[in-house]
Amino acid sequence: MKEEQEFKLDVAHIAHVELLTPTLQDSLCFFRDILGLRVVAQEGKSIFLRAYWDQQIYSLKLTESPYAGLGHLSFRAQSRRALERIVHDIEDSGLGMGWIDGDYGHGPAYRFRTPNGHLCEVFDEAKRYCAPKENLPYLKNQPDVFLGQGLNVQQFDHCNLFSSDVDSDTRFLRDVLGFRLSEVAIDRDGKQTTAWLHVTNKSYDLAISRDQTGLRGRFHHLAYRVDSLEAVMRAADLFMERGVYIEVPPNKHVAGQTIFVYVYEPGGNRIEVCSGGFLIYTPDWETVTWSAEERRRGLAWGTQLPASFHRYGTPVHEQYQTTD
Amino acid sequence: MKEEQEFKLDVAHIAHVELLTPTLQDSLCFFRDILGLRVVAQEGKSIFLRAYWDQQIYSLKLTESPYAGLGHLSFRAQSRRALERIVHDIEDSGLGMGWIDGDYGHGPAYRFRTPNGHLCEVFDEAKRYCAPKENLPYLKNQPDVFLGQGLNVQQFDHCNLFSSDVDSDTRFLRDVLGFRLSEVAIDRDGKQTTAWLHVTNKSYDLAISRDQTGLRGRFHHLAYRVDSLEAVMRAADLFMERGVYIEVPPNKHVAGQTIFVYVYEPGGNRIEVCSGGFLIYTPDWETVTWSAEERRRGLAWGTQLPASFHRYGTPVHEQYQTTD
Amino acid sequence: MKEEQEFKLDVAHIAHVELLTPTLQDSLCFFRDILGLRVVAQEGKSIFLRAYWDQQIYSLKLTESPYAGLGHLSFRAQSRRALERIVHDIEDSGLGMGWIDGDYGHGPAYRFRTPNGHLCEVFDEAKRYCAPKENLPYLKNQPDVFLGQGLNVQQFDHCNLFSSDVDSDTRFLRDVLGFRLSEVAIDRDGKQTTAWLHVTNKSYDLAISRDQTGLRGRFHHLAYRVDSLEAVMRAADLFMERGVYIEVPPNKHVAGQTIFVYVYEPGGNRIEVCSGGFLIYTPDWETVTWSAEERRRGLAWGTQLPASFHRYGTPVHEQYQTTD
Amino acid sequence: MKEEQEFKLDVAHIAHVELLTPTLQDSLCFFRDILGLRVVAQEGKSIFLRAYWDQQIYSLKLTESPYAGLGHLSFRAQSRRALERIVHDIEDSGLGMGWIDGDYGHGPAYRFRTPNGHLCEVFDEAKRYCAPKENLPYLKNQPDVFLGQGLNVQQFDHCNLFSSDVDSDTRFLRDVLGFRLSEVAIDRDGKQTTAWLHVTNKSYDLAISRDQTGLRGRFHHLAYRVDSLEAVMRAADLFMERGVYIEVPPNKHVAGQTIFVYVYEPGGNRIEVCSGGFLIYTPDWETVTWSAEERRRGLAWGTQLPASFHRYGTPVHEQYQTTD
Repeated sequence: MKEEQEFKLDVAHIAHVELLTPTLQDSLCFFRDILGLRVVAQEGKSIFLRAYWDQQIYSLKLTESPYAGLGHLSFRAQSRRALERIVHDIEDSGLGMGWIDGDYGHGPAYRFRTPNGHLCEVFDEAKRYCAPKENLPYLKNQPDVFLGQGLNVQQFDHCNLFSSDVDSDTRFLRDVLGFRLSEVAIDRDGKQTTAWLHVTNKSYDLAISRDQTGLRGRFHHLAYRVDSLEAVMRAADLFMERGVYIEVPPNKHVAGQTIFVYVYEPGGNRIEVCSGGFLIYTPDWETVTWSAEERRRGLAWGTQLPASFHRYGTPVHEQYQTTD
Repeated sequence: MKEEQEFKLDVAHIAHVELLTPTLQDSLCFFRDILGLRVVAQEGKSIFLRAYWDQQIYSLKLTESPYAGLGHLSFRAQSRRALERIVHDIEDSGLGMGWIDGDYGHGPAYRFRTPNGHLCEVFDEAKRYCAPKENLPYLKNQPDVFLGQGLNVQQFDHCNLFSSDVDSDTRFLRDVLGFRLSEVAIDRDGKQTTAWLHVTNKSYDLAISRDQTGLRGRFHHLAYRVDSLEAVMRAADLFMERGVYIEVPPNKHVAGQTIFVYVYEPGGNRIEVCSGGFLIYTPDWETVTWSAEERRRGLAWGTQLPASFHRYGTPVHEQYQTTD
Repeated sequence: MKEEQEFKLDVAHIAHVELLTPTLQDSLCFFRDILGLRVVAQEGKSIFLRAYWDQQIYSLKLTESPYAGLGHLSFRAQSRRALERIVHDIEDSGLGMGWIDGDYGHGPAYRFRTPNGHLCEVFDEAKRYCAPKENLPYLKNQPDVFLGQGLNVQQFDHCNLFSSDVDSDTRFLRDVLGFRLSEVAIDRDGKQTTAWLHVTNKSYDLAISRDQTGLRGRFHHLAYRVDSLEAVMRAADLFMERGVYIEVPPNKHVAGQTIFVYVYEPGGNRIEVCSGGFLIYTPDWETVTWSAEERRRGLAWGTQLPASFHRYGTPVHEQYQTTD
Repeated sequence: MKEEQEFKLDVAHIAHVELLTPTLQDSLCFFRDILGLRVVAQEGKSIFLRAYWDQQIYSLKLTESPYAGLGHLSFRAQSRRALERIVHDIEDSGLGMGWIDGDYGHGPAYRFRTPNGHLCEVFDEAKRYCAPKENLPYLKNQPDVFLGQGLNVQQFDHCNLFSSDVDSDTRFLRDVLGFRLSEVAIDRDGKQTTAWLHVTNKSYDLAISRDQTGLRGRFHHLAYRVDSLEAVMRAADLFMERGVYIEVPPNKHVAGQTIFVYVYEPGGNRIEVCSGGFLIYTPDWETVTWSAEERRRGLAWGTQLPASFHRYGTPVHEQYQTTD
């Protein structure tokens, strides 16, 4: 009852995502020249990038690797105490891995894996982003200058993981990290096929989708937000023009009601550019459950997603992965 | 230090606003036929309205009264325990008034006044909105059907109070209710002229502006959100066409960076239609302080707000009010 | 050479389209309540409607009929002399039918058929639209008040005919009526599959598509324009909400580069809501020819049109029609 | 009567504008890096630029000069015969200057001055723009690749001249060049203060405004079009960010109903970025006349234009000019 509504509110948001890519320079061109991200640092085989409205110093760490996929997913805790509570619960769950010293731009982080094997971390201390003097925005409540560059994506929006067992990952994210389940799609057996979870007022910060190949721990996509529905169409125009593979052209999701376009960046990772969607303010939001039958209606306006959307993930080297 | 970052996260959001109007039927036409709100109930001299994406059963209670202004401002607590903590802190502040039995659509509420005298309440139990059977939306994660009616405003966005002492109100909202100060404008003496405060990820849910008339406890405006920047311009077109007084045509705020248009509804209350703006995700957001000198640059693109914006509030019957 | 560029500039634009519908009242609801057209007159079994920016007194004549389809297509000549030149050329072509006295809102019209059998007319004298006194727009350069009603479509945009012999119709429209061919799609034999033709600066006012059923003289669709790309998506939302069948959700055409959504109105006729696209100003525009191979790339962002787009037309009563 | 409606339709559109600037490199940066125009050629002290949807090889010739202002305004005729008819009429008017050999990208042009002294030319033969091989657009009906660069302005839209005698210039443009007067503002004496004239379906291609300084032959502004109303606001954001002086922030014109923003490019010339507005299709459009009283209502939503809008023009070196 009411007691269940005493949510954990300890994870503030997703701070950044590390993406692995076998083609670091090409991936860099995609994110910098097409999406309009800016490079804030480069260390070893990694490049750190930010959107101009990102509030963490970077939202994307691109790391050269033999194969594409998720490096790690990083959460920012609300406070030191919140971090302590989260780590305590992760350790209880048996999925904890231990502390690392930190990475570019943030302090010590506790690392763990989701039940399906995605590497994650949570931290609280971070360096604040300060735009370089020669590049200060006119409005100082904005972290970075607006440059009019490529798609000018504004902010990291969400991450979507592939999983061979969505229910387990969802349970972990809810019970241990305090995510709330805004919407969920289920199959005929009542098992989750996609779960949309949030810690902010966005209807989702993190989604988990069933990997129909049965592979474990793969990456589905991450999304950057643009400031209007038509900017999503302009994104498709630029992708078309630059020869970026468009897997799903602009359309409207049922869950979250965002307008989206899906492409593959040169390294092979699926990337979404999105806008719109709704925010959840009420504390008594009831999870919206979509049956297999309801999901058969397709996207909001009736289009079906392509089969690849349910099978293509990174790494694509299937031999590298183990199935359940 | 860190300890200060252990925010109170007990107020979920603003549930609704009660507006007083001397011209109930005309005000109803404005909100229903022009903004596109829907009537959910009528009780005595009050009409309860909602935007189609509002998550509480209503966001506006319009009450007939000899003069315009704020009836009350209503907050929804995150949970029963959160409500208990909030009430405890209000009582400690000496501004508590006591419990009422509830109102249409929600349970018992604790009433109190801001230091400047605005009537407020906080509650936790509420009836969930269920769209009538003949009017169910096609997408069931949406609370209400989309009708294509007037401006089709989506959701209540924020409320702005006038105050003869912004600092006191801000301190109360932060210390007692757990609001965070995202941005603040100050005069040469360091006193606050406008404060923007949030409990959700929006950059502000509530703003307090200095009432240059020196009157206490007046209402400045409330805002409904539309889904695009150009919908704000379409709003101005419809206001122009219907003879609604436009006090400030579409333009861009510095604080919050929203695109807005300000009008007076027939009862005299100032209403804003807005879109855009930014969300705050990071827990270490530092309040952005705008000096008197910086504020002299005007709105984002250089326009100055009209003098009325700093002096016109409701009630306009100045004799009714006492100055500090 | 140059001589060929001395275009006939005698047809000003498409004045209106008469659509036949077996369900007059339901069709009326679609055009009036969803698209936002206004009724200007009713005579016998016909209702005359206009969009608020239409410059002729009406752009749509809806007529009750046992089957759906095109009633007639009506062109406005630039002047009396222009009309005389046009009629002379039509009579020369052998496709002329003769004068009618006129119809609601316009004077004598000369009737003729396209080679594929579509009924057309051309006239020059028309009654100017005057908004009723109680409904005058605030800006008097606008023909009609803006009401904020349904999709608020602005203006009739173009008409698309189905034809069993596109080449013949195109030749007639170019040679006799002075249309210019902005773009054309051809099959492997070099025969036209779709032709886009214009008399205004729009890249097309009239399109002719091959009817893959081989039927003659059918109607493919007509289009109304909305004022932004995102209004096309809002249109899809309203169609979805009202249960209107969406044949093709919002997407982008290659030819004309318009953003569109296609639906069937209750009478069965295909209707498009569109925005964007380009205008042709230069007199030396060279027809853009799309080969069968190029057309296989699908819509601008790679989506394929459904098979129905090439086979579904009105009337659907195939027995009524004769094939070539 | 009807006879008067036999319009001259010989001028196709404005082909390009030559702007003079005392700061060629800074002006180049403005047009190329902020507006997103592309350089197509450089000859002597002139740089030729185009927007990616321009249909002539260039729409802007930037020429270094001691002062800012109009170099010349260039019209493209519909055909060789149309050109002959136009030249004949100009010569009749007594304002003809004679033929020049042509300029970059076009053939022989006939030069003349408006009554107020603006240098103009008209030509018919031009080189067609061919995008360089390495930069071909994906959609071949588009003249140029979409680069996602600065404001990505689409196309030259219109030019506005300052004049000490609007009536005379208007009469010349109508009688000699075949422009039609879509809208006109008049003072109490019935003299024109601004005239909006068109040869395409745009509601204006050329406007003439009264220069309240009484100077002759100055330049008011030229406009490039962006593809949405919100792109105008994005333009204002980029201008703000880059320190470009915004004379009038985004707002809506009464005449033409375009959404606009006005800035001064580094050379001092006023530049507009616009979107929206209406097209005129009907041949019986009656000129809309705005009285001095109606004009006092300001812009569409009630804002007044700044005084500079009626007095600032280029060249600003007032000593250079002679008054009437």
